[in-house]
Amino acid sequence: MDKVNIAEKLNQFSDHWSPKIVGELDDYDIKLVKVLGEFIWHKHDDEDEMFLVIDGELNIDFRDRTETLNAGEFLVVPKGVEHKPHATNECSALVMERKGVVNTGDAFPGELTRDTLDRI
Amino acid sequence: MDKVNIAEKLNQFSDHWSPKIVGELDDYDIKLVKVLGEFIWHKHDDEDEMFLVIDGELNIDFRDRTETLNAGEFLVVPKGVEHKPHATNECSALVMERKGVVNTGDAFPGELTRDTLDRI
Repeated sequence: MDKVNIAEKLNQFSDHWSPKIVGELDDYDIKLVKVLGEFIWHKHDDEDEMFLVIDGELNIDFRDRTETLNAGEFLVVPKGVEHKPHATNECSALVMERKGVVNTGDAFPGELTRDTLDRI
Repeated sequence: MDKVNIAEKLNQFSDHWSPKIVGELDDYDIKLVKVLGEFIWHKHDDEDEMFLVIDGELNIDFRDRTETLNAGEFLVVPKGVEHKPHATNECSALVMERKGVVNTGDAFPGELTRDTLDRI
């Protein structure tokens, strides 16, 4: 029940595409992630996913368009919708989704897959 | 599925203690609220509640202590824990909790109760 300072947590890691759990809301993880470069196309059939940008610029490709998010902007990717995040420069975001959701969704597990997350 | 700019949404209202729905994540509302002065003691028996401060300083009294949150800090009030938010100067926060949770929780409905929320 202690407060979390997002900047302090972001200072504790530097790896990309590897979300860290920083809090919990009922059955949801509150995560921070740093991203750089391209993720892969994927979807989560049963869960929405929220991206709130903290620093930098995050692009989320959808099959019909790209959304570009800057600090203080968020977007909820609806369940079942294919998306591909990418960032030209390092970007940090707060991500919320139901516990147990694997980051690469329906895509075949690969080097970007993180099925267990560190808590910091 | 459009992105939400938090600052733009905050510019659309000025009333205090009256959360506005700005998004949804599965069964959760993503809300923005401006606060000034004192709320009341209450708890939510079955739902956690997340407060992420956007601007200003938010105090959350618990029965045994007070947490003070500034911009970029969040806290999750666990289900069943009595709390009383207050702010000496106007403060804005992003609040997330399960849909249908009434802001005054178990406290007797009063002038601060908002059981239907505007979506902006």
